[in-house]
Amino acid sequence: MTVTLADLNRANPADFAAAIGDAFELAPWVAEAASAKRPFSTVTDLHAAMAGAVRAEPRERQLAYLRQHPDLGGKAARAGAITEDSKREQASVGLDTLSEEEFARFHRLNDAYKAKFGFPFIVCVRRHTRDSILAQFERRLANDIEAEFATALQEVVYITRLRIAAKVTGDGMPQVSGRLSTHVLDTHAGRPAVGMAVALYELAGERYYRLTTAVTNGDGRTDQPLIGGRPLPMGRYELRFSVGDHFRSRGIEAGDPPFLDIVPLRFSIAEPEGHYHVPLLCSPWSYSTYRGS
Amino acid sequence: MTVTLADLNRANPADFAAAIGDAFELAPWVAEAASAKRPFSTVTDLHAAMAGAVRAEPRERQLAYLRQHPDLGGKAARAGAITEDSKREQASVGLDTLSEEEFARFHRLNDAYKAKFGFPFIVCVRRHTRDSILAQFERRLANDIEAEFATALQEVVYITRLRIAAKVTGDGMPQVSGRLSTHVLDTHAGRPAVGMAVALYELAGERYYRLTTAVTNGDGRTDQPLIGGRPLPMGRYELRFSVGDHFRSRGIEAGDPPFLDIVPLRFSIAEPEGHYHVPLLCSPWSYSTYRGS
Amino acid sequence: MTVTLADLNRANPADFAAAIGDAFELAPWVAEAASAKRPFSTVTDLHAAMAGAVRAEPRERQLAYLRQHPDLGGKAARAGAITEDSKREQASVGLDTLSEEEFARFHRLNDAYKAKFGFPFIVCVRRHTRDSILAQFERRLANDIEAEFATALQEVVYITRLRIAAKVTGDGMPQVSGRLSTHVLDTHAGRPAVGMAVALYELAGERYYRLTTAVTNGDGRTDQPLIGGRPLPMGRYELRFSVGDHFRSRGIEAGDPPFLDIVPLRFSIAEPEGHYHVPLLCSPWSYSTYRGS
Amino acid sequence: MTVTLADLNRANPADFAAAIGDAFELAPWVAEAASAKRPFSTVTDLHAAMAGAVRAEPRERQLAYLRQHPDLGGKAARAGAITEDSKREQASVGLDTLSEEEFARFHRLNDAYKAKFGFPFIVCVRRHTRDSILAQFERRLANDIEAEFATALQEVVYITRLRIAAKVTGDGMPQVSGRLSTHVLDTHAGRPAVGMAVALYELAGERYYRLTTAVTNGDGRTDQPLIGGRPLPMGRYELRFSVGDHFRSRGIEAGDPPFLDIVPLRFSIAEPEGHYHVPLLCSPWSYSTYRGS
Repeated sequence: MTVTLADLNRANPADFAAAIGDAFELAPWVAEAASAKRPFSTVTDLHAAMAGAVRAEPRERQLAYLRQHPDLGGKAARAGAITEDSKREQASVGLDTLSEEEFARFHRLNDAYKAKFGFPFIVCVRRHTRDSILAQFERRLANDIEAEFATALQEVVYITRLRIAAKVTGDGMPQVSGRLSTHVLDTHAGRPAVGMAVALYELAGERYYRLTTAVTNGDGRTDQPLIGGRPLPMGRYELRFSVGDHFRSRGIEAGDPPFLDIVPLRFSIAEPEGHYHVPLLCSPWSYSTYRGS
Repeated sequence: MTVTLADLNRANPADFAAAIGDAFELAPWVAEAASAKRPFSTVTDLHAAMAGAVRAEPRERQLAYLRQHPDLGGKAARAGAITEDSKREQASVGLDTLSEEEFARFHRLNDAYKAKFGFPFIVCVRRHTRDSILAQFERRLANDIEAEFATALQEVVYITRLRIAAKVTGDGMPQVSGRLSTHVLDTHAGRPAVGMAVALYELAGERYYRLTTAVTNGDGRTDQPLIGGRPLPMGRYELRFSVGDHFRSRGIEAGDPPFLDIVPLRFSIAEPEGHYHVPLLCSPWSYSTYRGS
Repeated sequence: MTVTLADLNRANPADFAAAIGDAFELAPWVAEAASAKRPFSTVTDLHAAMAGAVRAEPRERQLAYLRQHPDLGGKAARAGAITEDSKREQASVGLDTLSEEEFARFHRLNDAYKAKFGFPFIVCVRRHTRDSILAQFERRLANDIEAEFATALQEVVYITRLRIAAKVTGDGMPQVSGRLSTHVLDTHAGRPAVGMAVALYELAGERYYRLTTAVTNGDGRTDQPLIGGRPLPMGRYELRFSVGDHFRSRGIEAGDPPFLDIVPLRFSIAEPEGHYHVPLLCSPWSYSTYRGS
Repeated sequence: MTVTLADLNRANPADFAAAIGDAFELAPWVAEAASAKRPFSTVTDLHAAMAGAVRAEPRERQLAYLRQHPDLGGKAARAGAITEDSKREQASVGLDTLSEEEFARFHRLNDAYKAKFGFPFIVCVRRHTRDSILAQFERRLANDIEAEFATALQEVVYITRLRIAAKVTGDGMPQVSGRLSTHVLDTHAGRPAVGMAVALYELAGERYYRLTTAVTNGDGRTDQPLIGGRPLPMGRYELRFSVGDHFRSRGIEAGDPPFLDIVPLRFSIAEPEGHYHVPLLCSPWSYSTYRGS
């Protein structure tokens, strides 16, 4: 259910709050403050006004607001006592299916974090892989209180920006999506490699999780971005290209077994709203890749 | 214990046979035949004469000779009832430490092979990884008897060539060794990448076994070949380069996490006596590799 | 002055001929034959019908038709006694400004060609550079009469296809244009190279003629294709990239003088209606290129 | 005629001076001072002692010494009134065959230089191309007197180091030579490109001078370095590889004309005593190069 910016600009304050107030969990005063600043010419401005309402509050109220957030992977999440938005977001990165051991680890980190900072660990999970959430958790535990307070508020901005972008349509949408794409050129034939299988994996610890598979089209690209229409989760990835099958199907001899069979390209994503183009140029005996555009 | 070709050329037939006869397992007639063709000007000629003695025999005797070979990973090997050379060779590729399941698989393959061809599966294990032995086994089971008989004799040539090369020194040594090397160039700095960690893995099924680690020297190479002084076992490999650490130590920013961290190069070896040079050209944002020389 | 396919389909035969008849020089019977086959659903079909009319004629009349074509760079062209279309086409490749020596050379080739084949040398000049016209001329002189007759008719098809594409608008336009494009990636920074000067040269003999210059935009591309909206003239080209200036402006040290300054990429075009993407990946110490897509 | 370091260490002062004194033109006191510091354990030490003798002199005498040097490309050179060593060195870079215009240009630069600094322009010509001498000349004219005085003395060190290295043999020879090499890999075949023609050109202004040609050997290298056994003249170069002929001889189709025919690699040399390895990796549709090692 989305609402248009135009309708929001016209709505009475109660309807305005009802439509988008829950983007800021349990903080109805955010929608109230933003409502008073209407009309907005872009959705980005609307979200900026809501984020500004949080930033304008005294420290005391900001802290109370941060404290209302649920533990990441914590008991509230397990018991279902969190908002629907939070539930969906945590599930997207696998935090709803933690093993007992992982649950215990998150629990310990949460306890240590709350003991140090006085509010729960807040992170925009849609911008992360499970691996990078853990890395962030441990890194942020080492912050001093001022740095961490600012970081937590910035994460609220990321979280709510995504929620507003999902709820509201209109001009000037905030940039919340990144794109991961590839392209395979066969430098032996001087043409795009057509029909080559490609698989994308996420690295979590030492394990690989397959996220998607595709086959290159007539231009050597995939019909859809490998990841698109959402933030690119920060973390480590591996693309695997079936180069051996491609050249075998072209009848090219390249040793038995062939010098190149599955070609892995391993890389990391650090900018969730960025464009990562990771092409492969390959012959049966050589290949190269680069961050393209 | 090695012997010189000159000494072999001078030895009486009994000493000649005692020195090198066991290169051809349980076939004293091979040394006898070769002894009569002395002198040899190269070690390669000596081995060729011994291999020729096998090739000159009637099919019946060749078959009897092939039948004397032990099962690969079989009961004889487990029970210790095989020659010392066979034992060392089978151990080199892990055939002495098979799990019950693997032992059963080899056992079944051996049975099927012997039922079809009437002699045990013979392969020069030093030219293979465990993976490629299994692949060979299954592929050769599909051969017709003529093709497989010829293949088995060729494997005997490979096995005994390695044994002779290990036992005899002199001019014209047979080419029994390959070489796997690498070289890392930092195209960001225009210099060899010095002090970069490199690890070599063998792929067996879906698992990786680390074979060796090294650190690049002042010229971006490893002081020793990654594999050298022996046949390169046919199979699949992965080189892993600590590219992220290298650029971090140079103070280069390339994202957090860095776009490239561990760079894997996956390739196969099909020519055990060949030279595989697999270099890496890398910047923090791009890399390439090729089969070099 | 263009006409729509719809109008042509509706026109009376005289108007039809008046509008597009001169695409086939001095051959009014081509338009007549095509007129009778209306309506056409695509411009490609219209041209195919006209080309088919030529192909359907007896050899005698085809020959008469070929004979009506002017000499390339010949006296008729100089004296102005050729059609406007021919004049424009010959001028496009510099055939209107031949030196006395070049004029003499074309004259000799024309004479030899006509003596052998009995009709003038016909080539679709818009698909060629001056260099490749000369190369074609000499190569085709060696043809036998059957092969050359077929080649001449095919060139007529190319010439008239361009003329029809210029005169008529409508669905299903024939593919008469190619595209030459580039893209510069700075693999030192992991970004497109912005603001880099690029120049495109045509090679004629040992000389270079600069065709165009451009500066890369924010995506490392040129705003316009280097050549587009017309056939790519077959021939040899060189792209020159001001790589040294780019890295100097980024403050990168790469030697004095820098290892790379002007980087030339030399390549040939053989498919006038194709897409040639010739990118440059460069660091201060390395570069690569490939035929991309 | 060379002399051994051992003989020099043993010689009486007059013979010592006779043997190597003219390395420092018209400055017999340099050999005298160095003679007194014998014995030297390396040729590098011998030269360092001679250079040190110049550096130890008062400014007045250093200036007098610099003033004794001939004009570069000047009247003295033309008239033959310079030492044999100077004559050979100036000839090596073409300064003995200047056109009237070039002679006039050097003359003007010399005059401006002497007017500003009070001594002639001194440069170790063997470390430069004609182009870079001119570039140095114009750049050094902009120096202040202190910087230029130091630069001139440093050039004397370069000049005399080469002379000593040519006259004396023994342990610890000074590093006076660089090396330019190449290597061609055919990434289409996964092998070195054998028998490929390579030509090396020097760029002077807009013109190219061919320095050497070679054909790649069985390892894809040239039997001799492209430049070796001497300093690499600073300047701009172009390597040209006959890639089109190579793939044509292998029967590979790559368009007509082929996409790649002559591949030029243009680069500069800034370190005369360095190693420049400039390889080419090529398929019919792609190539790359880098400063290797």
